[in-house]
Amino acid sequence: MAEVVSFRKDPNKAGDGALVIPQLSDGVLRLTLNNPPANALSIAVMETLIGELQCVAEDAAVRVVIIASTGNVFSAGHDLKELTAHRADEDGGEAFFEETFALAADLMLEITRLPKPVIAEIDGLATAAGCQLVASCDLAICTDTATFCTPGVNIGLFCSTPMVAVSRAAHRKQAMEMLLTGETIDASTAKDFGLVNRIVPKQYLTQVVTKYAAIIASKSPLTLKIGKEAFYRQLEMPIEDAYGYAAQVMVDNMLTADAEEGIGAFLSKRMPQWTGE
Amino acid sequence: MAEVVSFRKDPNKAGDGALVIPQLSDGVLRLTLNNPPANALSIAVMETLIGELQCVAEDAAVRVVIIASTGNVFSAGHDLKELTAHRADEDGGEAFFEETFALAADLMLEITRLPKPVIAEIDGLATAAGCQLVASCDLAICTDTATFCTPGVNIGLFCSTPMVAVSRAAHRKQAMEMLLTGETIDASTAKDFGLVNRIVPKQYLTQVVTKYAAIIASKSPLTLKIGKEAFYRQLEMPIEDAYGYAAQVMVDNMLTADAEEGIGAFLSKRMPQWTGE
Amino acid sequence: MAEVVSFRKDPNKAGDGALVIPQLSDGVLRLTLNNPPANALSIAVMETLIGELQCVAEDAAVRVVIIASTGNVFSAGHDLKELTAHRADEDGGEAFFEETFALAADLMLEITRLPKPVIAEIDGLATAAGCQLVASCDLAICTDTATFCTPGVNIGLFCSTPMVAVSRAAHRKQAMEMLLTGETIDASTAKDFGLVNRIVPKQYLTQVVTKYAAIIASKSPLTLKIGKEAFYRQLEMPIEDAYGYAAQVMVDNMLTADAEEGIGAFLSKRMPQWTGE
Repeated sequence: MAEVVSFRKDPNKAGDGALVIPQLSDGVLRLTLNNPPANALSIAVMETLIGELQCVAEDAAVRVVIIASTGNVFSAGHDLKELTAHRADEDGGEAFFEETFALAADLMLEITRLPKPVIAEIDGLATAAGCQLVASCDLAICTDTATFCTPGVNIGLFCSTPMVAVSRAAHRKQAMEMLLTGETIDASTAKDFGLVNRIVPKQYLTQVVTKYAAIIASKSPLTLKIGKEAFYRQLEMPIEDAYGYAAQVMVDNMLTADAEEGIGAFLSKRMPQWTGE
Repeated sequence: MAEVVSFRKDPNKAGDGALVIPQLSDGVLRLTLNNPPANALSIAVMETLIGELQCVAEDAAVRVVIIASTGNVFSAGHDLKELTAHRADEDGGEAFFEETFALAADLMLEITRLPKPVIAEIDGLATAAGCQLVASCDLAICTDTATFCTPGVNIGLFCSTPMVAVSRAAHRKQAMEMLLTGETIDASTAKDFGLVNRIVPKQYLTQVVTKYAAIIASKSPLTLKIGKEAFYRQLEMPIEDAYGYAAQVMVDNMLTADAEEGIGAFLSKRMPQWTGE
Repeated sequence: MAEVVSFRKDPNKAGDGALVIPQLSDGVLRLTLNNPPANALSIAVMETLIGELQCVAEDAAVRVVIIASTGNVFSAGHDLKELTAHRADEDGGEAFFEETFALAADLMLEITRLPKPVIAEIDGLATAAGCQLVASCDLAICTDTATFCTPGVNIGLFCSTPMVAVSRAAHRKQAMEMLLTGETIDASTAKDFGLVNRIVPKQYLTQVVTKYAAIIASKSPLTLKIGKEAFYRQLEMPIEDAYGYAAQVMVDNMLTADAEEGIGAFLSKRMPQWTGE
């Protein structure tokens, strides 16, 4: 953790030309991808995002993260020019490809492991690893003109890492349809598939996402941490083990000061005051 | 099993004031939660439900179970006053919390393990462990004004045990939306999410649920037992193991008298007579 | 593999009376079930289908498979008369039942393991193992009058092998509804459940399925093979393992000639020429 530097803490690095623009407001950190026109997930962008998330994990001032983007493309995924340039490497690019896909997997798992909720705010096209990023966030809200695609099959490179996230968000035939045809789906289909939670008119997107982030940011950060971690862990257990584990999580949660405060406040019809303990 | 007493068999215990009112008719046992106004899943209610289900497992007269409730709330989940009162215990409530959440897990798993189908009949609000109860039943039918919620995050106590059932019924982003925001969803959204099977106008709820229960009660009880057990077991296996297991289940099922009778009746266009063997 | 004979290669065997009619056109092999009126999945039909699929696996001329049927029933599942006739066997039919259900499981797994996409084209009723066949294909496209059913519970023989495929395609309460009630669902419900991808007016069914097959057949066969295999393998892994595995698949895929060609063609805005290497 020692080497990680949040651009938020080093404003010189996060000027108008920063690859990711961080904005913190009322406990909500908005990370805006700023690598136009495609907002490609280059090595530099992925490293920046991972660095930001690692700082967020330790930063009590951040309760919820939004991942948004500038321009008309949410993210077009990996940088194909960057990948292609490394074919000239001595190893034909193998080491660089390994770095790229391992880093992408790290980024997606970092989102899942982060003890704070992450909301994707999607305007425009989310494709390949960009679609994977949407599928990997805890929640996703998009405009009615947003579109989604896993088009690797069109260029000879099946979207195998995006499929990990997409096939866990949607039914398998629906994921297969995206992966095998490479066709673009609209926002409404993406909502039916389970890739996004809400569809919002374009002019209200940021307002609605900010409202949702604020609702979640008003909860106990400790409770959110307990719940999010338990969610992804229990999902991978047989149901009896999941219940054994989750029942213990509930006991531990009950013994926190925030649960005592929250339940007490509810029973006496007042607003709770979280201490995060 | 020796100590289990069904209130159905001891009518003095199941008067108007009983916590759970059992009514058996045409092979369908209706268990009505009667702990108004919230139909809270207190220790006493959960023990009563578990006791009833254990009796049902052994009782050939019961072929299908309906779980319904009195009043305007299907169930608001655990009894927060009961939980809070135990904070005064020497251990700060830990033992009691353990008992509560372990009992809730037992109840949900008992429903899943019961060799007879269980249908939730939901009118009004199903929240927290009440929503878990709906998600844990094999089928769920609700009114168009029913609502669903996992609001623990609002009171500092994440709905971690409800999440086990909800995240296995719905897509993960949809489950996360309920869990992270604590917001209430309507019947139509719950159907889209996969939490309920059918939505019925309020005045027809019991009639429709009874019709569905009667359809299922008309099947061979042995076949239902074989199928329900196989369903939940194979769900947790890799697909090749699941096929190996399910193929053997089919062979065993074919060798039952009820399959011979059922197939024979079908081929000769007459009604089957089940012997349950 | 040595004994497998594709009827395509022995036209005398695949005349008008063949149980499965193979037609190869533009890299798309259409296998039409021709066992009217029920297109029952008898031993002979299942063995023929498995034989065809094994040939397809090795046959570079086939890039995509369509499974369709003649008449008004897509498939009514196993042949109940065939099964019943074997009750007269010395073992009461046990060995024959084992053969039948093991063969059905083999057929479904063969579809999943085939390194080429398989599309179900459904007109009319798909019931029991016929519904399982639909659920087991990678994609499914049906007419607006197609219907789906797992009615074994009505004849004392729970659809336990169909449930393996259906419960992995749909949410569990929706699968349970089909399995416990044995009721028939319409095309629109099947799409909501995730059993089919698209609904098409009857007169356009073959045209639309052929168009989809052609779209997929235009992709690199090597890329399709890599992606389809990875899809089903990663689905059964915990998410971290899935990412580790999929990241390596992406690296291997990047190092293929088809990925280099595909990405190069995309960057220079020309059509790719696949070599399948």
